[in-house]
Amino acid sequence: MTPSELVSDFISAFNSRNLEAAIGMVDDECEYDNVPMGKVVGPEGIRASLEPFIAMCDQIEWLVSHQVESGTVHAGVVMNERLDRFHLGDHWLEIAVAGLFVIRNNKIVLWRDYFDKQTFIEQMSA
Amino acid sequence: MTPSELVSDFISAFNSRNLEAAIGMVDDECEYDNVPMGKVVGPEGIRASLEPFIAMCDQIEWLVSHQVESGTVHAGVVMNERLDRFHLGDHWLEIAVAGLFVIRNNKIVLWRDYFDKQTFIEQMSA
Repeated sequence: MTPSELVSDFISAFNSRNLEAAIGMVDDECEYDNVPMGKVVGPEGIRASLEPFIAMCDQIEWLVSHQVESGTVHAGVVMNERLDRFHLGDHWLEIAVAGLFVIRNNKIVLWRDYFDKQTFIEQMSA
Repeated sequence: MTPSELVSDFISAFNSRNLEAAIGMVDDECEYDNVPMGKVVGPEGIRASLEPFIAMCDQIEWLVSHQVESGTVHAGVVMNERLDRFHLGDHWLEIAVAGLFVIRNNKIVLWRDYFDKQTFIEQMSA
């Protein structure tokens, strides 16, 4: 498995709304940094951060337009460009994202997403 | 030369405040998309968009923390994570950015930067 394949599986877990599968792919010390909104650490931090929002969505569709990698699953880096779509009630919330994933020993140790906070907030309150 | 080396030269041109060198590396149809703030097309669009801001800065320092690539300079993709620093008057404006660069035939045909607009605006008005 390559770092890119590992990240593709991680994205697929979210698209299946399978938070447990996704969390199984992160390191115990994983930092999840939602750059303009703050960061959490570890599987429990990630669960607490994402579970309520995922529960609000009846569909999640993260569309990857570009993904590039270096290294191996023992020491690798992946970046991707995505359109993260969340179906809430009767509308799709869409946010353009660039993500960074650092991989060590088959686990994600850093997940950092870049996006525009206001674009997200305006859709949440729409 | 690899796609990553080409992008490193592009970043270095900005760090030297050499806009002409940077513009010489983009395709005639290059799209420069500053995601939350809009896009321009072509060398003249990029010059018009960046020249006034660069003229305001006495130093530019774009620090690349991660950079990954795929393909070749004939058909390649590069993404990087950066801290873009601009020295304006007596302070540094800093913005965390993730950038996408699509390369065709030794030129950049797409440059797309992801960042938080409000973080930038607050520092511009500081």
